[in-house]
Amino acid sequence: MTDASRPEARNPRGFVDRRARDLAAERAILASVSAVYERYGFELLETPAFEYADALGKFLPDADRPNEGVFALQDDPDIDSGQWLALRYDLTAPLARFAAQNWTTLPKPFRRYAFGLVWRDEKPGPGRYREFVQCDADTVGSARPEADAEIIAMAAEGLVAAGAPEGAAILKINSRKLLNGLMTAAGVVEEGQKLAVLRAVDKLDRLGEGGVRRLLGEGRLDESGAFTKGAGLTADAAERVLAFTRAGAGRGETLDRLANVIGGSAEGDEGLAELAAIEAALTSLGLGPDRAVFDPSVVRGLEYYTGAVFEAELLLETKDERGQAVRFGSVGGGGRYDDLVARFTGERTPATGFSFGVSRLAAALRAAGRDPAGEVRGPVVVIAFDQRRMADYFAVAAELRAAGIAAEVYLGSSGMKAQMKYADRRLAPAAVIIGEDEFAAGTATVKDLDLGRSLSAGVADNAAWRAERPGQLTVPRAALVGAIRKILEARA
Amino acid sequence: MTDASRPEARNPRGFVDRRARDLAAERAILASVSAVYERYGFELLETPAFEYADALGKFLPDADRPNEGVFALQDDPDIDSGQWLALRYDLTAPLARFAAQNWTTLPKPFRRYAFGLVWRDEKPGPGRYREFVQCDADTVGSARPEADAEIIAMAAEGLVAAGAPEGAAILKINSRKLLNGLMTAAGVVEEGQKLAVLRAVDKLDRLGEGGVRRLLGEGRLDESGAFTKGAGLTADAAERVLAFTRAGAGRGETLDRLANVIGGSAEGDEGLAELAAIEAALTSLGLGPDRAVFDPSVVRGLEYYTGAVFEAELLLETKDERGQAVRFGSVGGGGRYDDLVARFTGERTPATGFSFGVSRLAAALRAAGRDPAGEVRGPVVVIAFDQRRMADYFAVAAELRAAGIAAEVYLGSSGMKAQMKYADRRLAPAAVIIGEDEFAAGTATVKDLDLGRSLSAGVADNAAWRAERPGQLTVPRAALVGAIRKILEARA
Repeated sequence: MTDASRPEARNPRGFVDRRARDLAAERAILASVSAVYERYGFELLETPAFEYADALGKFLPDADRPNEGVFALQDDPDIDSGQWLALRYDLTAPLARFAAQNWTTLPKPFRRYAFGLVWRDEKPGPGRYREFVQCDADTVGSARPEADAEIIAMAAEGLVAAGAPEGAAILKINSRKLLNGLMTAAGVVEEGQKLAVLRAVDKLDRLGEGGVRRLLGEGRLDESGAFTKGAGLTADAAERVLAFTRAGAGRGETLDRLANVIGGSAEGDEGLAELAAIEAALTSLGLGPDRAVFDPSVVRGLEYYTGAVFEAELLLETKDERGQAVRFGSVGGGGRYDDLVARFTGERTPATGFSFGVSRLAAALRAAGRDPAGEVRGPVVVIAFDQRRMADYFAVAAELRAAGIAAEVYLGSSGMKAQMKYADRRLAPAAVIIGEDEFAAGTATVKDLDLGRSLSAGVADNAAWRAERPGQLTVPRAALVGAIRKILEARA
Repeated sequence: MTDASRPEARNPRGFVDRRARDLAAERAILASVSAVYERYGFELLETPAFEYADALGKFLPDADRPNEGVFALQDDPDIDSGQWLALRYDLTAPLARFAAQNWTTLPKPFRRYAFGLVWRDEKPGPGRYREFVQCDADTVGSARPEADAEIIAMAAEGLVAAGAPEGAAILKINSRKLLNGLMTAAGVVEEGQKLAVLRAVDKLDRLGEGGVRRLLGEGRLDESGAFTKGAGLTADAAERVLAFTRAGAGRGETLDRLANVIGGSAEGDEGLAELAAIEAALTSLGLGPDRAVFDPSVVRGLEYYTGAVFEAELLLETKDERGQAVRFGSVGGGGRYDDLVARFTGERTPATGFSFGVSRLAAALRAAGRDPAGEVRGPVVVIAFDQRRMADYFAVAAELRAAGIAAEVYLGSSGMKAQMKYADRRLAPAAVIIGEDEFAAGTATVKDLDLGRSLSAGVADNAAWRAERPGQLTVPRAALVGAIRKILEARA
């Protein structure tokens, strides 16, 4: 093979390989969140990676960026007349397709949860990938506000089960109907304009009131000189929107304050009544204001929400790249979307759900010193000391495995020193060495690599530990499993 | 929304939704196989769904079908100069890319396992999907036959852990070097011709010796009148190949017989020596001839194998569509592929691995009455009897969940009868009914739906069961959790 004909080994841009440590965290999250969601009566569903492009639609959070979106390709003309296929960009659009397709035979309301990869054909950036794992839970077929409350409670409990400290996961709740009602009362009726208002309010965190006021009005010029066209509200209407967002986070008292600001629009009143029902259900479920609050500044960027919206925030303090303490912020969100199934069926089908990014949650927990995977340990490495004794080394590894201990025989072609280095890099707790002396005496030598790592990390004091825990010991062959187990337990 | 503008809710052809029961089986397989593979010292890795098309290559099993293969699309020109991306069609090609890319920093040999979706742009058919889950384990960087033996032993152990009865999973082993050696000795040196010989032998099961003899020679006319061009061997050479496949399955004795048939070609002798080393390692690992045998009729269709090849067969009897007992056959396979990493690096890097289809294994186990998921149970359903009491019903559900019992409040808008039907369809073990009488008396009524299902399935005798297990009972509110637990335990 010539150099020129060789492809370069590299990842496509925006796609990363995930190694054991990250995957162990994801698996731990998957297991603990699944247990919570199933206890709430949600059943697992997995839809395919591909949907027909027309069925998938394009309901993406960053509609500001029209060139970005979904990965799509035209199928083989012999298979389905060359229809366009698209990779799912979230788990909600495929659920809407599934629910519409199977509506007559599903138990209703239909509760499902899902874990799965999603793909976004976007420009990658730091921490921004084109493929990631989402976890969603949704109830389709219930218009009750209690269905929203249940999703909110389940999300809060799921985050704690995944590893967030009690009290560090908070759900912030709002309703699209409040802001919609407010706008209708102020004479804003055009859908595009309403959406522009929502998107402006969504930037409150980043731009502050001044920036949002400009986005609600004529528009805003940013530092780079780029101009964003505003929603075109009058100064008075913009002020009412801002007053609404200032009602502050809380439970009953926030609802009271909002009632004053909304001031009697029909849709606003409907939204308030729904939030009151959510409040009652949350209280029944034992979720106090330390775990769920109403917060009028929460909007969520997605166009398809029709009622309650919610966002999960982690109050963990983590350090940024410059070592400064920062709040991690949002790890997930959701809301009610009563029109998504109707795209297929023409019949309004109420639905509500919550979604979080699994890698983002794992990163948040890890940054806060709460790695969901716990400590990663390698296998015990049986050193291939004598080439003629490979069968014996295999029998040793099999014996360790039968005792439930992860073990392997070194299978490369390097000498002792490289083998010990390999064992260390694999994070092996111990290496087993059996040479001619050991075979003759019926013994095995065990090197305690955990100890070595503790010493070099400064965790253990050299002199004190050496006295009671030798770095290397030779034991009768029959005592090998016990000796290894002692090392494993000392760490556990 | 008009009818014409509505997309149809349907799956793309060859793609299916997977429901809770199938996914529970997959999860159970994933958990038990992972435990085995990690005990062998293999670490988890997940590569992205996409690879650059040139890095992925096209090493598909069905090279006979040139129009079929990978899903590919051209990337956004702004992101990576519009390079072609392709979805992985297996987990081996991405591993080769990963190993080549990270070779200098990986611990070597590198042992990894992986679970993941793969995609094939093929014409779908019954049981033949365009997306499925594979599970692979590979060792990259060891030329030792013991590395093959370890993979074989681990595969056998993994299948039993997944649910195959002891003795029902058998690994059949062969080496490409034997047949290659035989062909070289017979004057067959051209790679295309060698591959044609391998593909002919691979059809032994289906076509028998007569058909294979024709495919080894001039070619074969099938019943439909289609002619398949043969490998063009002389009658004598074809006879030697067939004699080789007749050596029969076994361990030491098969190697002895093969030594006679191969008769001294250098490559054949090398293959025999490797199989002898595999035999010794398998014995050390405790794998007798009931779990792993040499079988010269095993070839494996993939072009890239360079040494040992193996196939896992389940000896379970299952019934086909006509109710006839059939052997399920192959559920996975693998082998040594020493040239795949060299595509990138130019340096030969020995590698060996095993792969199985997770859904196919789950289907095999289920068909044999050994569902890896066990019994699927629904949540307890708290009936929404009185709309003004939703908060109380939520508190009941929360209490059950806190006791570790899956529970939900019915959140639809239907009446009692439909709610009971819903509970039954969810496979709820019980329904909880609390109406005004119960609220007044501080009680709860429990309907034993497990019992109802057992009665209607004829599992329980109506009169006898009724006597000691009432279909419905009213208990003090404080005794509710206990009453539900009793129903759950009666089934477990």
